[in-house]
Amino acid sequence: MTEPLPPGSVIGILGGGQLGRMLALAAARLGLRCHVFDPAADCPAAQVSARHWAAPYDDTAALTDFAASTDVVTYEFENIPPAALDVVEALRPIRPGRQALVTSRDRLAEKTFLQGLGLTVAPFGAVDDLAGLRAALDWSGVPAILKTRTLGYDGKGQVRILSADDAAGAWAALAGAPAVLEGVVTFDREVSVIAARGQDGTVAAYDPGENVHRDGILRTTTVPARLSLRERTDAVLLAGRMLNALDYVGVIGVELFVTTAGLVVNEFAPRVHNSGHWTQDGCVVDQFEQHIRAVAGWPLGDGSRFADVVMENLIGDDIARLPALMAQNAALHLYGKAQARPGRKMGHVNRLIRG
Amino acid sequence: MTEPLPPGSVIGILGGGQLGRMLALAAARLGLRCHVFDPAADCPAAQVSARHWAAPYDDTAALTDFAASTDVVTYEFENIPPAALDVVEALRPIRPGRQALVTSRDRLAEKTFLQGLGLTVAPFGAVDDLAGLRAALDWSGVPAILKTRTLGYDGKGQVRILSADDAAGAWAALAGAPAVLEGVVTFDREVSVIAARGQDGTVAAYDPGENVHRDGILRTTTVPARLSLRERTDAVLLAGRMLNALDYVGVIGVELFVTTAGLVVNEFAPRVHNSGHWTQDGCVVDQFEQHIRAVAGWPLGDGSRFADVVMENLIGDDIARLPALMAQNAALHLYGKAQARPGRKMGHVNRLIRG
Repeated sequence: MTEPLPPGSVIGILGGGQLGRMLALAAARLGLRCHVFDPAADCPAAQVSARHWAAPYDDTAALTDFAASTDVVTYEFENIPPAALDVVEALRPIRPGRQALVTSRDRLAEKTFLQGLGLTVAPFGAVDDLAGLRAALDWSGVPAILKTRTLGYDGKGQVRILSADDAAGAWAALAGAPAVLEGVVTFDREVSVIAARGQDGTVAAYDPGENVHRDGILRTTTVPARLSLRERTDAVLLAGRMLNALDYVGVIGVELFVTTAGLVVNEFAPRVHNSGHWTQDGCVVDQFEQHIRAVAGWPLGDGSRFADVVMENLIGDDIARLPALMAQNAALHLYGKAQARPGRKMGHVNRLIRG
Repeated sequence: MTEPLPPGSVIGILGGGQLGRMLALAAARLGLRCHVFDPAADCPAAQVSARHWAAPYDDTAALTDFAASTDVVTYEFENIPPAALDVVEALRPIRPGRQALVTSRDRLAEKTFLQGLGLTVAPFGAVDDLAGLRAALDWSGVPAILKTRTLGYDGKGQVRILSADDAAGAWAALAGAPAVLEGVVTFDREVSVIAARGQDGTVAAYDPGENVHRDGILRTTTVPARLSLRERTDAVLLAGRMLNALDYVGVIGVELFVTTAGLVVNEFAPRVHNSGHWTQDGCVVDQFEQHIRAVAGWPLGDGSRFADVVMENLIGDDIARLPALMAQNAALHLYGKAQARPGRKMGHVNRLIRG
């Protein structure tokens, strides 16, 4: 257990999107500086950070310079090229650590890890060729979902298979990428748990939120989620088990299906999570500050929820509603992105529901 | 009434201290960029802003370049040299406007303005030489306070006169600066109202806070203040009257003495105010966002208070308590200042008191 980083220390952030931006804003509240590494010249996090390296992830010199300028490095997305992580890790600690990254970036490793912890996941199997897919469909039946093992997000990199006859088309759609076939889980709702683990091993979890997706993208998260006391306890405990097993430092986002037979773990992200944005206006210490506290070796903060909140993502043209949103009694969070494209997350709104 | 500035617009901030820093963080939440002008290379606001001009206030070229890069300019302190404001104002609107600055930076103009609105102020008179001071002490009696007309803050630029014999010493202490003699007001407590006025003329006020000073520096603000319903209403109404009279756009901080004969206005600051820092954790929209909203021509946000809060300033060596403060269930706000000097504001803590 090392000492907490003092104010003025530098947190390096790999990735400069909206999650990096909100991490930087939280770090600033604590008197910490942020240095951002992101190839995009005008990325959202660079606008609010002390320094920015606008270089590709294979620019070893830039990565070295960036890492050397920091005290500790974290990241806002899990698909950072491993070679870039090697360069950084030779100089500074990366938190959360590599094990969480390696596990979460590969759906096969992720599901195997979760199963190994005794958690329930959807039935799954590796698929490396069309023959393998046909064989897998034998045990899964249809419908089933074929997903690339790596680099999938927001519904990308996956195909729903409704009939065994669709196998060839589905396999072609993934263009030969190693894949996993998942059986479909029948669930009542999807919830997520945002949890954190400090460098001292302390674990804390936010109240689970209930998520609604559209077109594969999160639209709203509502807290509290409709969960029984037992489901709520199970959700928090399983997140804690995952954090301990990974010797994790930082915030994790765990997506769960609520079924009549209990909770099924869908996936986890080793970072702050879109479904935790409600914490910015419903807790004294939000997920971004909690992550920075953990990464900086500080004690975890008070994440207890003091309000009911509905978080709504503003996606693509939703931003055209801004004039009305400005005038509402709601907390607006915009990401500083110049162009609204379909599917692009432009901001979110937290609406507090008071008793 | 102009259109609200769209996300991506640039707010210029004159002054890069902690108030500028927290304004920049609030602007970032709304998707706005900040450009900061401050002579200090590593000022707190520069660490979280898109651009920073580190130049003196008499550098016309730098001021011109800065102003031209913005859409609107605001400020975090009222003692900006008027010539610098002239340069900026030739290019971009300054909000709040010059009238508020001119009035607030000169105690004589300030008190004359407040009296003209029918508000109660301490008895006062201009003092331009030692003979004038002696004459003023005749009407004021002792104790009385001699204050420089301009450039006073945090208890600086003022001398308490306990006996008429002290006149010469007091006058010498101010080194010949034009001054105001104020009679001492006997008060039960000091409160302040943080209020805002939008470009559309809408006025909103935060719940008044109760202030405790030590050595001339604010130590704590507690909300709610101990006020009768009538005092509370009076406080809010007088702030509104001031905002309208000044055709004000932005947040104002008004310090009031609570006396048995009613409220006495001590002074006002045409900016966000230390005694309004509790709003960061007690309201959905805090004083910093409210100021940015007004300056950017947005509608004012929801400033209603949802918790009781005690704000404590961390001054000088208070920062040595950081290890304990990190572990408390409290909201920490640190300013990114490298050196702790006596009297220097290093950060603050907001403690929420829940029912």
